Amino acid sequence: MSFREHLQTVCDGVDGALACSLMGVDGIEVDTHLAGPAKLDLKSLLVEYSSVFRNAREAAEAQRAGLVDEISLHTGQVVTVARLVSPDYFMVVALTPEGNYGKARYLLRVTAPKVRSEL
Amino acid sequence: MSFREHLQTVCDGVDGALACSLMGVDGIEVDTHLAGPAKLDLKSLLVEYSSVFRNAREAAEAQRAGLVDEISLHTGQVVTVARLVSPDYFMVVALTPEGNYGKARYLLRVTAPKVRSEL
Repeated sequence: MSFREHLQTVCDGVDGALACSLMGVDGIEVDTHLAGPAKLDLKSLLVEYSSVFRNAREAAEAQRAGLVDEISLHTGQVVTVARLVSPDYFMVVALTPEGNYGKARYLLRVTAPKVRSEL
Repeated sequence: MSFREHLQTVCDGVDGALACSLMGVDGIEVDTHLAGPAKLDLKSLLVEYSSVFRNAREAAEAQRAGLVDEISLHTGQVVTVARLVSPDYFMVVALTPEGNYGKARYLLRVTAPKVRSEL
């Protein structure tokens, strides 16, 4: 499966999913599947959030708390769940606040190793 | 109930809880309940993580994605869930990776309004 197919599989499996991306930790998007039209500029949001991922990683490293492998951010408009795929890449799914957050976490966890094997 | 009692109530209700804090978004700790001895310097970790909260808030604001009201960070050693209590304060619970993450989220959600009413 291509990257994009994995991203689409995650979107298809999560009620309320808006988009799923593979991103570099440096904020460079590798690929994105958009589940439909969105009110927000999701791609720009995910790029902004990649700085949060970097920031969290540095904070955890500074405190010897281990490697950050998952981050969830909730706002009144959008929930995002990011999961580390390799030291340099993460997958992130954006969904509505009413969407299936638990399923999003689960599908990222099982899909990340498949994507990693293709990097 | 005092702040500390609310923090202890959260710790007592979450399997695997290590600590619960009330923090300023500026990184200044208001109060912390430690559930027991910990391998990590949890207070320092939570101070570091407050910068992640600020960073996420700025990123979401920049993209008009709404107010960040919850952030979860997972590493191999510790999971933290932070929930906004007011624009300037958040509660955060740290737990082991095997701890009850869903219960931590639930208890923060129901406790945050009680703490807010005392601020």
